[in-house]
Amino acid sequence: MADEALFQFLHSEIIQYVNCAETGESENGRCVSKLENMGFRVGQGLIESADCHWNIQNLTLNKFTKDTPRFKDELDVMKFICKDFWTSVFKKQIDNLRTNHQGIYVLQDNKFRLLTQLSAGKQYLEHAPKFLAFTCGLVRGALSNLGVKSIVTAEVSVMPACKFQVMIQKI
Amino acid sequence: MADEALFQFLHSEIIQYVNCAETGESENGRCVSKLENMGFRVGQGLIESADCHWNIQNLTLNKFTKDTPRFKDELDVMKFICKDFWTSVFKKQIDNLRTNHQGIYVLQDNKFRLLTQLSAGKQYLEHAPKFLAFTCGLVRGALSNLGVKSIVTAEVSVMPACKFQVMIQKI
Repeated sequence: MADEALFQFLHSEIIQYVNCAETGESENGRCVSKLENMGFRVGQGLIESADCHWNIQNLTLNKFTKDTPRFKDELDVMKFICKDFWTSVFKKQIDNLRTNHQGIYVLQDNKFRLLTQLSAGKQYLEHAPKFLAFTCGLVRGALSNLGVKSIVTAEVSVMPACKFQVMIQKI
Repeated sequence: MADEALFQFLHSEIIQYVNCAETGESENGRCVSKLENMGFRVGQGLIESADCHWNIQNLTLNKFTKDTPRFKDELDVMKFICKDFWTSVFKKQIDNLRTNHQGIYVLQDNKFRLLTQLSAGKQYLEHAPKFLAFTCGLVRGALSNLGVKSIVTAEVSVMPACKFQVMIQKI
């Protein structure tokens, strides 16, 4: 299937387009933030249309719903993101999920698809934030529509492995 | 699978982003042309990576290759676009392919996926070009990497049906 390729090429186009509209180092943060926002809306959309994709109902953690919610707690939501959600978007699961049980979760992907296009050399590390911003937003948007407010950041040590850190925001 | 939804949401984001960067009616043409160019590069990319997706080799019409080309003529290339390529991107085949046998092909999709988000009312017809530009480029890019130079335009009569007209450019 060309699905994966289609997503990768579209993602590259978005990075290129958002980036080329901005010039200069000082604009870099704004560019990353635009990508993050796009990801956020796409993540929200994916969860909104999730009923038909994942055949799940009562997806959110909303305690006021009459029916039994699909997720029993925050950790359960994170597991859904690591398995179903990640597989649906990136065709693989998150390789490792860790938590401090105090609202911080670290999701490690040992071969993150959107970084495999980049060369593994250290000189490309500086470009990594652009390639991670959309996905940070994607996770934040998905979580948001699952009733979990969060801040999501990412870091790369050795490409194409990377870690996404999710900090839950208690309301 | 969320693949289709992912593509649709990304496509919407691109339209929104390209559009919101431009303001005023006079900029509309430029916006459509940017979307077309993005589609062109994605179409090229999909064909470049096609060997692994479609298990085909010698994809182009290049007569100088030692091996037998996959396509025997232009019509054969168009059939590939209508079937394999369209299915891969839009999860359905083109419903009708017509040609005047003089280099013009009309590809009709009776339920074009990227228009189904728009309401069917006539008042939305004016927005249709934005929703078709990326795909026009996608087809032009795919054809280009299959060795066929073309101009691709699109028109909508009753949403969500639409026709893509491919004019082959003889070199």
